Amino acid sequence: MPQYVIGVDYGTLSGRAVVVRVGDGAEVGTAVHEYRHGVIERTLPATGQPLEPDWALQDPEDYLDVLRIAVPAAVVAAAVDPSEVIGIATDFTACTVLPTLADGTPLCRTPAFDTRPHAYVKLWKHHAAQPQADRINELAHRRGEPWIDRYGGKISSEWQFAKALQLLEEDPEVYAATERWIEAADWIIWQLCGRETRNACTAGYKGIHQDGGYPSKEYLAELHPEFADFADTRLTHPISALGDRAGGLTARAAEWTGLPEGIAVAVGNVDAHVTAPAARAVGEGQMLLVMGTSTCHVMSSSALTAVPGICGVVDGGIIAGLYGYEAGQSGVGDIFGWYVDSLGDETHESLSAQAAEQPAGAHGLVALDWQSGNRSVLVDHHLSGVIAGLTLATRPFEIYKSLIEATAYGTRKIVETFEAAGVTVTELVAAGGLKRNTLVMQIYADVLGRPFSVATSEQAPALGSAIHAAVAAGAYPSVADAASVMGRVERDVYQPRPADAAVYDRLYAEYSALHDWFGLQNETLHRLRAIRNEALKG
Amino acid sequence: MPQYVIGVDYGTLSGRAVVVRVGDGAEVGTAVHEYRHGVIERTLPATGQPLEPDWALQDPEDYLDVLRIAVPAAVVAAAVDPSEVIGIATDFTACTVLPTLADGTPLCRTPAFDTRPHAYVKLWKHHAAQPQADRINELAHRRGEPWIDRYGGKISSEWQFAKALQLLEEDPEVYAATERWIEAADWIIWQLCGRETRNACTAGYKGIHQDGGYPSKEYLAELHPEFADFADTRLTHPISALGDRAGGLTARAAEWTGLPEGIAVAVGNVDAHVTAPAARAVGEGQMLLVMGTSTCHVMSSSALTAVPGICGVVDGGIIAGLYGYEAGQSGVGDIFGWYVDSLGDETHESLSAQAAEQPAGAHGLVALDWQSGNRSVLVDHHLSGVIAGLTLATRPFEIYKSLIEATAYGTRKIVETFEAAGVTVTELVAAGGLKRNTLVMQIYADVLGRPFSVATSEQAPALGSAIHAAVAAGAYPSVADAASVMGRVERDVYQPRPADAAVYDRLYAEYSALHDWFGLQNETLHRLRAIRNEALKG
Repeated sequence: MPQYVIGVDYGTLSGRAVVVRVGDGAEVGTAVHEYRHGVIERTLPATGQPLEPDWALQDPEDYLDVLRIAVPAAVVAAAVDPSEVIGIATDFTACTVLPTLADGTPLCRTPAFDTRPHAYVKLWKHHAAQPQADRINELAHRRGEPWIDRYGGKISSEWQFAKALQLLEEDPEVYAATERWIEAADWIIWQLCGRETRNACTAGYKGIHQDGGYPSKEYLAELHPEFADFADTRLTHPISALGDRAGGLTARAAEWTGLPEGIAVAVGNVDAHVTAPAARAVGEGQMLLVMGTSTCHVMSSSALTAVPGICGVVDGGIIAGLYGYEAGQSGVGDIFGWYVDSLGDETHESLSAQAAEQPAGAHGLVALDWQSGNRSVLVDHHLSGVIAGLTLATRPFEIYKSLIEATAYGTRKIVETFEAAGVTVTELVAAGGLKRNTLVMQIYADVLGRPFSVATSEQAPALGSAIHAAVAAGAYPSVADAASVMGRVERDVYQPRPADAAVYDRLYAEYSALHDWFGLQNETLHRLRAIRNEALKG
Repeated sequence: MPQYVIGVDYGTLSGRAVVVRVGDGAEVGTAVHEYRHGVIERTLPATGQPLEPDWALQDPEDYLDVLRIAVPAAVVAAAVDPSEVIGIATDFTACTVLPTLADGTPLCRTPAFDTRPHAYVKLWKHHAAQPQADRINELAHRRGEPWIDRYGGKISSEWQFAKALQLLEEDPEVYAATERWIEAADWIIWQLCGRETRNACTAGYKGIHQDGGYPSKEYLAELHPEFADFADTRLTHPISALGDRAGGLTARAAEWTGLPEGIAVAVGNVDAHVTAPAARAVGEGQMLLVMGTSTCHVMSSSALTAVPGICGVVDGGIIAGLYGYEAGQSGVGDIFGWYVDSLGDETHESLSAQAAEQPAGAHGLVALDWQSGNRSVLVDHHLSGVIAGLTLATRPFEIYKSLIEATAYGTRKIVETFEAAGVTVTELVAAGGLKRNTLVMQIYADVLGRPFSVATSEQAPALGSAIHAAVAAGAYPSVADAASVMGRVERDVYQPRPADAAVYDRLYAEYSALHDWFGLQNETLHRLRAIRNEALKG
């Protein structure tokens, strides 16, 4: 009798449950549930009170609805008997974090605090903690904290410590009532198995957990006296390896999901990282690119090295036993979408068809892909985009193509930075929505001068979660073993074309010249942003 | 009884005749004739033979048609008696140049050569003599020719010597039969009055006539042995001052035009330069900007100075008795047109309305206005445009506005270069099609931080020619005197707004940083062009 596992992928606007056959990774049923509250950005639903700019909250009840609605629906769609399901695992956006009581009750579900914005889930794209992040970074460098180099020299305002410090400073009452400060990735597992766990991935990448500990009391006290015990009191639980069993499904969660009580619940995980096993990209040097509106680059290696400008390196951050590296580009598909939706009057299809016809370099353009800032390797969200080489003969499809190329140059810059630091990249594997775009993928192969493999699954994060569920249930001895059976990838789908690659080598040199000048040597883009912000205020 | 003069403005595609009252400059009648052959760029009409890329020819018969058709039509439109007309003058595009026999017969009108492309008029935008121009410049600098600094260090491929050397090297038979190498500006005067003349303006700006002579025999011989006697044999005629009487209208020209035989014909002139008196911009330091698809800056001064990067300085080049300075921007209105026609789906009106609403600097953008290369002050037609500061929030009207601002920064760069060389600019006067664009003009006033005056006439070049006709006919003692009565300008129409000007000072500093880096310190734009050209060939 076949066995099944459930993978649940929690995105920004919805949760997707997929039923996967343990023996071969076949995806046999899917259901998606859109969050009732979506992203809470303007007003708090409970009171109607307006939120400050850059806030982005969520309601944790929406996450439970995915368990109550999408999971049973997927089982129905799969036409499998729930008794054949042996485990469940989830992946989440991150850093998406919330304050709870010691029993896991969200503060926003308590009568005392259900009208307080700071009691809700702060979504990954809550960007209102930048002043706190700035202080975190300044102090870390001033004190020479050893962990700061693990994060490319910069802690993001999106991450746990910046958001927690904002909570302390802006709503000390809610902070005082916060007994746990926990990633939604871990909170949902707590709801499933009734036990608190902390997964190695978010603890490392978002929680500054390095070499067995969090930042020191002395460091935290210097940020704010009342912050000194933050890690000791609110992040206290030990770290679990990815693929470990967090516990058994509780009776309550069995009732929500319709699944058997006691089946394995895996420790939490993050959407990009969990995709690596789904694409069989868990070996040393296999870089997975999750390419969508933005791109996340994840890769495992046995070497621990400081790679400048990456998001983070975490022991067991992608797969237990290897160091997991993460880098990223903050704008990719959203740059193409911006050009098509805001600036032109042609479709992606029409622009792509024309762009594919034109030989590499024939537009004479080079662009910087910083319309949404630069995550790696400059770690500077106040940069902006540049296009150079425009003439009166320049046509829309040429600009469109130059923007695609710019994002490919950005990936090449990341790959070269890894290799310059001694972390070799042996294979490039694409996942995410853009993997289906043949123009984009061919340009990436030509610009990188390397073949690109492509993850086969169209719901790779959920498949990746299902793989972790299978391991937690004991069906495979390790995530790597499970990935080799349940993961699916088509190798070397896109091959670099030597003539185009040679042209792109020359264009990449120009990209690098602009990258270094605008990103490192000259302050024009920062000053333009300052002028803009003043003008918009005035 | 009132007296009248005729001004004829020869443009790229048509000729315009205007009847002007001598006593007050009133424009009382106009007619336009479109050239039958337009610009000859693809095939030679006489034979159908294809032309090489970058060629641009005209048929001189089209110029005579303007005399035969537009001049009498303008007189009819004016409802004046031809006997009341006392003079005629013309202005022309330049350097537009043709080979003729010693009697002025164009070689393309002789049976021996009417099928030879090199026998036709080479229009100003014939760009096929670049290799010759490169050698002219290289040799001039190598030999330390004193005249090269009068042209910002560079002789254009558009000008007389480059085009003549191309003729010699590519069609020696036609070159051997060439008894005169003459600007169309002078050739048309020859047709009107039966006497060869050479005007100070084209001789200086396009013919390298400086300090009473042309480049030396030794220099020319080093370019090509058979070129040694070029100036002595084919440019031989002495130079006439602007506003001088070239002669009386011949019986043949009187028959063409319906005007009285013997009336004054003024020496030739150039469209931009002749506009200065029409806008009363003939005094020391009054800079006239003829703003259209491109912008031409002309200004007179008593000082002779080497201003780097200008098109030229010529004794009496704009008005007799002063040094005439010319600078230019190769792309202005055509950049705005390119954006609207090729890249967007909104109209000039819609974009302008939105741009006018937005405070200066609020788009966070700065652009380089080099989509058509840079004439002044970099004299580099292989540069191209740049836009910096793009974000996912950038909207079309913001890019459109940044392009307008970029051309204003380009003008500011020219004005500052003049003043840094000790040639003070006391007033800015706008003419040309863009003077009616209130958004453009206000941005120019704000960016330059100075008021802008505006030429009143909508056909200012023809009015400028009419002013020269009045002087040639003896109605006024000088062009300046005639301009003070017949020219029309509205002073200080656009005033800089201090708050916007302060923002633009900051943005101009960013423009300057990009200008110097892309234009002087870094070769990216040149390499992008080389890559493009190779890709298009391959």
